[in-house]
Amino acid sequence: MAATSLAMADNVEPMPTPPQSDIEEGLVFTPKFDKDGLVTCVATDAATGDVLMVAHMNAQALAKTIETGEAWYFSRSRRALWKKGESSGHVQRVVEMRVDCDQDAVWIKVVQHGAGACHTGRRSCFYRAVKSGKPGEATLEFRDADKAFDPKAVYTQSD
Amino acid sequence: MAATSLAMADNVEPMPTPPQSDIEEGLVFTPKFDKDGLVTCVATDAATGDVLMVAHMNAQALAKTIETGEAWYFSRSRRALWKKGESSGHVQRVVEMRVDCDQDAVWIKVVQHGAGACHTGRRSCFYRAVKSGKPGEATLEFRDADKAFDPKAVYTQSD
Repeated sequence: MAATSLAMADNVEPMPTPPQSDIEEGLVFTPKFDKDGLVTCVATDAATGDVLMVAHMNAQALAKTIETGEAWYFSRSRRALWKKGESSGHVQRVVEMRVDCDQDAVWIKVVQHGAGACHTGRRSCFYRAVKSGKPGEATLEFRDADKAFDPKAVYTQSD
Repeated sequence: MAATSLAMADNVEPMPTPPQSDIEEGLVFTPKFDKDGLVTCVATDAATGDVLMVAHMNAQALAKTIETGEAWYFSRSRRALWKKGESSGHVQRVVEMRVDCDQDAVWIKVVQHGAGACHTGRRSCFYRAVKSGKPGEATLEFRDADKAFDPKAVYTQSD
């Protein structure tokens, strides 16, 4: 069975880029990390299909997510690996992980433990709709924005 | 009603960054473009909730999407604005657009016209699942990977 070592993505020596046809039609997982060493990850609620959050994974976060079945990310602001729910208990169990055609984004369907995924206390980070206004302008409107938990009572650090 | 000019994001003079509390809890749309001038966009099928694609929007693509109600993106590889479905006819009508807590990602729920969103001919770009293998290794498996259309017959360029 075709396989790739995720750990190798951290090596100084980069792996040769496979041909586009292999990336798109092959069964070898060759995540295409950007210049910061990251892929984009979309987490959706396995039950409702709602997008809970968009975050990033480096090779280590991706490997730990695959190995443990729980979501790990890489924080761009804190420059650190973090396990979702490490401080809050709001872990995400991964039901399925998919990769897109050019292998620079992954989609995980998760069971969100605890009340929510967003550090603001909402179920999802996407709690505001964008409405069109005058040309060149847009406004926001709260949608599904009720607080599911009190973030001050839950977080010791942002996760 | 609070509003912001999307066009301003292209100005040489950057807008001052609002306080984090305004970004997260306010109703002013202040998209946080990255150093390449982009926000991440997740497009899901409004009917099924499936993630169709992950792409990027610059200020112009975002403004055109809001104004026209159809999805426009910015191609990082071609360094060009593009309307989804411009050559294939597979346009995406936006049912709802949402922005996330820190305003660096948008989620659009779309009605996907035509057979599919992916340039490989599938309905979704996420047609392969990542399976765990030996520690540090992972393999792919096709899921919902049937070709919905023949890309060679549809595309004059990648969209």
